[in-house]
Amino acid sequence: MFNKLLSNRIKNTPSSFIREILKVTQKPEIISFAGGLPNPISFPSEELKISMQNITEKYGNKIYQYSTTQGLDILRQYIVDRYKKLWNMNISIENVIITTGSQQALDLIGKVFINEGDTVLVEKPSYLGLLQAFMMYNTNFIQTKLNDDGLDIEELKENLKVHHPKLAYLIPNFQNPTGLTYSKENREAVFEAIKDEDMILIQDDPYGELRFTNEERLPYIGLNQTDKNIYLGSFSKIVTPGMRLGYVIAHKDIIRALETAKQASDLHSNIFGQYLIADYLQNNDLDKHIEKIKALYKSQASAMVEAMKEYFPSNIKFTIPKGGMFTWVTLEEGKSALELFDKAIAKNVAFVPGDPFYVKETNVNTLRLNYTNADTETIKEGIKRLASSLREF
Amino acid sequence: MFNKLLSNRIKNTPSSFIREILKVTQKPEIISFAGGLPNPISFPSEELKISMQNITEKYGNKIYQYSTTQGLDILRQYIVDRYKKLWNMNISIENVIITTGSQQALDLIGKVFINEGDTVLVEKPSYLGLLQAFMMYNTNFIQTKLNDDGLDIEELKENLKVHHPKLAYLIPNFQNPTGLTYSKENREAVFEAIKDEDMILIQDDPYGELRFTNEERLPYIGLNQTDKNIYLGSFSKIVTPGMRLGYVIAHKDIIRALETAKQASDLHSNIFGQYLIADYLQNNDLDKHIEKIKALYKSQASAMVEAMKEYFPSNIKFTIPKGGMFTWVTLEEGKSALELFDKAIAKNVAFVPGDPFYVKETNVNTLRLNYTNADTETIKEGIKRLASSLREF
Repeated sequence: MFNKLLSNRIKNTPSSFIREILKVTQKPEIISFAGGLPNPISFPSEELKISMQNITEKYGNKIYQYSTTQGLDILRQYIVDRYKKLWNMNISIENVIITTGSQQALDLIGKVFINEGDTVLVEKPSYLGLLQAFMMYNTNFIQTKLNDDGLDIEELKENLKVHHPKLAYLIPNFQNPTGLTYSKENREAVFEAIKDEDMILIQDDPYGELRFTNEERLPYIGLNQTDKNIYLGSFSKIVTPGMRLGYVIAHKDIIRALETAKQASDLHSNIFGQYLIADYLQNNDLDKHIEKIKALYKSQASAMVEAMKEYFPSNIKFTIPKGGMFTWVTLEEGKSALELFDKAIAKNVAFVPGDPFYVKETNVNTLRLNYTNADTETIKEGIKRLASSLREF
Repeated sequence: MFNKLLSNRIKNTPSSFIREILKVTQKPEIISFAGGLPNPISFPSEELKISMQNITEKYGNKIYQYSTTQGLDILRQYIVDRYKKLWNMNISIENVIITTGSQQALDLIGKVFINEGDTVLVEKPSYLGLLQAFMMYNTNFIQTKLNDDGLDIEELKENLKVHHPKLAYLIPNFQNPTGLTYSKENREAVFEAIKDEDMILIQDDPYGELRFTNEERLPYIGLNQTDKNIYLGSFSKIVTPGMRLGYVIAHKDIIRALETAKQASDLHSNIFGQYLIADYLQNNDLDKHIEKIKALYKSQASAMVEAMKEYFPSNIKFTIPKGGMFTWVTLEEGKSALELFDKAIAKNVAFVPGDPFYVKETNVNTLRLNYTNADTETIKEGIKRLASSLREF
């Protein structure tokens, strides 16, 4: 009834696809691979209870008072120290801002950089949450094909030449939705292609810590070679998503601009949560905790991959994730994952059809499966059901 | 160094005035009336500690997991019940969305309603945080004069006729920055003037519960008479600002649109804080707690008003707040509060010059004083210092 008064950006936003899907999948008889929830094992509940005790004693009223927009110094310092250790980054807390989850980082970057109609280069398929956030700033998206080893370099070069994007947004590690990871060679080729462009590269990395294999971590694209990189990180997948705490690492001039935008957006992120997570990180071994999560997710991912190998018809392709939370299934050319969805629901199994991860295409033949929030027996049973709907499709 | 790449909205945002001021005022020798911090007495620390215990036992992992965009049902239900009781509103939880502080509500409303260049009517002076939030959406502001008894009705009518604003933003109770409250008659006259306009009225009410006098609460403008009202509330001034929890009450179609915008902005507000505040509210008497805050703020406000009466030169005017956190001082015509600021700092007392509360005017002769975050002796001493700089000015 207020349609006349609404802004164009909201009128142009389709009602959330995922939200509608999640509604259907909440029936108890349905095995859902549709969500993206971390397994509760990733929440160190007992340790957080101790940290609650600590911070109420140690910081008094500060944990309840207004605080600074950029975020808690001790938490920013922890992030600085970790990235120095892992990546030899030459940064200080001036290069870090705490955000209300990584989703807010995306919104703030949109606010700070995008004028109506500006071009942003994203992967094809890309993260739905980024598309939603930037859509609010009337962005012109250009999608570049994602291959098994990373971004399609020829298509990337062509897109850069034709469209001169202002921003590029990539998830090089265990990408959402595909589960794919850029190879070392691909990362170098991407940097070679973009390094002379007047463009900011955003690398979103919520899953980078969740590598199942013993291979080395792969360095970020252009790591320590440019000021035009923005790195996004999050505590959601390795400590708790409920606190809504993510962060941005970037040149201090970019952080200052994000701070101005954040002040207008929510003043600051909840300070109680910042003290809590900071205390947890100071008093516990995060890497040890991450090992537990990785072991669990690895077994869940294997269960899904093994079941798909066993039960799926041979014309169905899927990615074999080396980390993260998702695998990506490709049906035969011309088939619609959206149509498959209805048949799968009839067999009490759910997934996310690929459509919302694309900018233009609809009725695509791809779909996303999440494996982190079900036990291995349930995963096997769910894949059996999905295989059965695939055979009839 | 990234200036070329930044969005116009950020380039047009002046670096935060208040932030610069707060930097100067943080020296320990300075008595600062510049901030807007609640007194820590408004944080029920002991009760919140008990609630932490309760929620970790009662809700298990849910307090750490992802949650719904609209907010926790039990918290929304509490708000519904309270507003039904206080205002006889005919609402359900579909009419409520939890936001990351009221500041986020302002940002989301901007996202949902404002196209570039749309006109928004605000008070003169208006709340700085609203101006900052809406500036991000390239808003055309029209300011309407605020008198001792509320909005200037003639100027309001003229502005409606000439500019046809899409939104109006008002703080009818203990306004920030002036401390003024709209009279019952003024509220009725405002509604009479706007009721046939195709315009949304936002009433921001963070201080409404903090009424020092025994007078009755005054009803909202157009209460229960229109679907075009948006009500904003917050737990920041009556429980804790650090959790960043505010809320919007509005027609369910507006809430749906805000939900879409919020999903793109931060997915949801921190769920731990929502469980915590909900548990606190269920197990404690909020009104009794508010009585304590009011008694304290009343004594602080009186101390400031009495000191101003005693020490200020007679040509200085100030408002006598009946609630809230601020008083508003008017210097002689032609004087600049910004110039006074430097002289006051030299005498170790600080305030916020009026400039950032206006859209066009600069070097105004008004300033804001906060009284909630200093004891009565310190207030008296600070006002003495300010009076001394006024006499030399």
